[in-house]
Amino acid sequence: MSQKIQIFDTTLRDGEQVPGCQLSTDEKITVARELELLGVDVIEAGFPISSPGDFLSVIEISKAVNEVIVCALTRSKKDDIDVAAEALRYAKNPRIHTGIGSSDIHIKHKFNSSREKVLEQGVWAVQYAKSKNAEVEFFAEDSGRADLAFLAQMVEAVIAAGADVVNIPDTTGYCLPHLYGKRIQYLFENVKNIHKATISVHCHNDLGLATANTMAGLMNGARQAEVTINGIGERAGNTSLEEVAMIINTHKDLNLHTNIKSERIYAISTMISEMMRMPVQPNKAIVGANAFAHSSGIHQDGFLKNPENYEIISPDQVGVPCSSIILTARSGRAALKHRLELLGYQPSKTELDTIYEHFLIIADEKKKVENEDLIALMGQMPILVK
Amino acid sequence: MSQKIQIFDTTLRDGEQVPGCQLSTDEKITVARELELLGVDVIEAGFPISSPGDFLSVIEISKAVNEVIVCALTRSKKDDIDVAAEALRYAKNPRIHTGIGSSDIHIKHKFNSSREKVLEQGVWAVQYAKSKNAEVEFFAEDSGRADLAFLAQMVEAVIAAGADVVNIPDTTGYCLPHLYGKRIQYLFENVKNIHKATISVHCHNDLGLATANTMAGLMNGARQAEVTINGIGERAGNTSLEEVAMIINTHKDLNLHTNIKSERIYAISTMISEMMRMPVQPNKAIVGANAFAHSSGIHQDGFLKNPENYEIISPDQVGVPCSSIILTARSGRAALKHRLELLGYQPSKTELDTIYEHFLIIADEKKKVENEDLIALMGQMPILVK
Repeated sequence: MSQKIQIFDTTLRDGEQVPGCQLSTDEKITVARELELLGVDVIEAGFPISSPGDFLSVIEISKAVNEVIVCALTRSKKDDIDVAAEALRYAKNPRIHTGIGSSDIHIKHKFNSSREKVLEQGVWAVQYAKSKNAEVEFFAEDSGRADLAFLAQMVEAVIAAGADVVNIPDTTGYCLPHLYGKRIQYLFENVKNIHKATISVHCHNDLGLATANTMAGLMNGARQAEVTINGIGERAGNTSLEEVAMIINTHKDLNLHTNIKSERIYAISTMISEMMRMPVQPNKAIVGANAFAHSSGIHQDGFLKNPENYEIISPDQVGVPCSSIILTARSGRAALKHRLELLGYQPSKTELDTIYEHFLIIADEKKKVENEDLIALMGQMPILVK
Repeated sequence: MSQKIQIFDTTLRDGEQVPGCQLSTDEKITVARELELLGVDVIEAGFPISSPGDFLSVIEISKAVNEVIVCALTRSKKDDIDVAAEALRYAKNPRIHTGIGSSDIHIKHKFNSSREKVLEQGVWAVQYAKSKNAEVEFFAEDSGRADLAFLAQMVEAVIAAGADVVNIPDTTGYCLPHLYGKRIQYLFENVKNIHKATISVHCHNDLGLATANTMAGLMNGARQAEVTINGIGERAGNTSLEEVAMIINTHKDLNLHTNIKSERIYAISTMISEMMRMPVQPNKAIVGANAFAHSSGIHQDGFLKNPENYEIISPDQVGVPCSSIILTARSGRAALKHRLELLGYQPSKTELDTIYEHFLIIADEKKKVENEDLIALMGQMPILVK
């Protein structure tokens, strides 16, 4: 029997807090609606006590979406939980995401506290959040570096206190996949009440292993993955939604599935990249401009004989437009506009004139203008149109 | 006893063949010299039969570097091997990298051949390459999808024929880390003469798993990793040198080491990105502009109490300049020039004037101008200076 993996998207919280990525409330509503259409199960909409903007956004996102769970972040503090519950009041399916540090380094150097005290505070926070008529998810911050026996004790205690979901974040992106997998396995073997909650994985990409760690967690029993579009987020970012979704989709023998409508991936990827001004590098898996480009002679030859020689996912599975129109210095505005629209841009007539002028400079230099050139050019539009 | 991992860099072959990434011979020489200073063990310098430019570059790189092994790619064909040997004639430590498909899908749809015939051709190619007074590495293309028993037979046969190194590429980026690790383990358990050769791993990033797969291979006995700077390469790219080097560096209990001088990583990353016009996304592990940026209130607070709360690698370990000078609309040309130089750019006076003009537009919009803004701006310089 295939097991359902819940996709918890934190683009609007862990992603949006990156410098330069801030969105207006209207933009966040647009993203939240697209995320619901994409098929995510949970939208983490913000950290309400952190700013009036975040508070308002959680309210407006709650109103704007339908059945998807709307989640708000808190520390293990009364004010945080009160404000989060208030911000979630219009959510049809609200979730409060509270938690505290679990590693000795966080307990000592961040909280100047003790294991006993943080455990007590975490349990209290779960109980208090449960009184707010919302699902409660608990995060054991920096659990990638936590003492395993203590982590198990904490997980057991917060489940006993009523946590519906327990998140085991590798906050610093430190873990190797086999070690992170073993942590999750250890919890399943040592936490008596673990089947009363959903275990969630939240990985960071500091060593380039976020996706692999997430998969290791899921293969060891976790049933929720916390991800962002394009892997944006603190430092080297979070786990990429598109990578996890397409691994599960491609490797059927994992016996896992998600609700993600994969053909919507490319459109939301370009929307987030543009809206947050966070370029996606051409060699990014699944959504990079070169992800489906076959360039070397050997590869092109093999690919033309049979795409399966070099392609494990076909571009249309993730909604990548396969244009056969080659853009050169002889292409007109119509061809340029068509390609830009396939890439998710909707330039005005005046903007198109400016873009076309710069397009011709590139086309003179490069014979053939590729999607990545256009994406780079569009990334400069705020400068060029001034 | 810590085991040495050979770092085989293919930035100048698998990386350089990406559209738009082509370098001149002079640029390749500059890169090759930097790679040798970085401490790589092998430089794959090109595919000599593919073009006169590649042929010339392998010759000039061979002359320009010292002790590092210079490697040239071939198919399992006489002409390819003859031309590669000719191109390597000035190399102090030459290596010929020959090979053929190993998966049934490649054997059938690409070569229209049989297992027996490709095996015979591969063995012949190794023997022929050995006659050229060079080390010989054999690649079993698409081994990530090959029948395991046949792959083991092929590896055993090419080692018997004299291959010094055998490369087990996951050509399509299909494998999951535990499965790729098991493939390498299977070879060590079933190929009788496997200890007569070095086993090499060459992974692609189509599912975002190249680094994890590479590590799984190394943990199961492979002793060479094939990588590129910034993970550039076909489609979603190759394994990132910087990620593998820093995982090995950070996780001492793996008992592995490399010769990489990690403090040179950031400089070569920016050089490759600029020279090949391949932007590195801000959330790229190790070398992204945000990789060491702490943005959220919670994180900044924890970071200031003790960097270890949120940082597993310190920026200076990989040569990331930690500037305390904040660039704003009030900054002058000197501050801008200083920061650009830290990022690896050396603008002329005229170029600096143009850059400064655009810098002020960004600074007006964004209060604080970050490294990623400058990198994006510099990426547009060929357009802006026209």
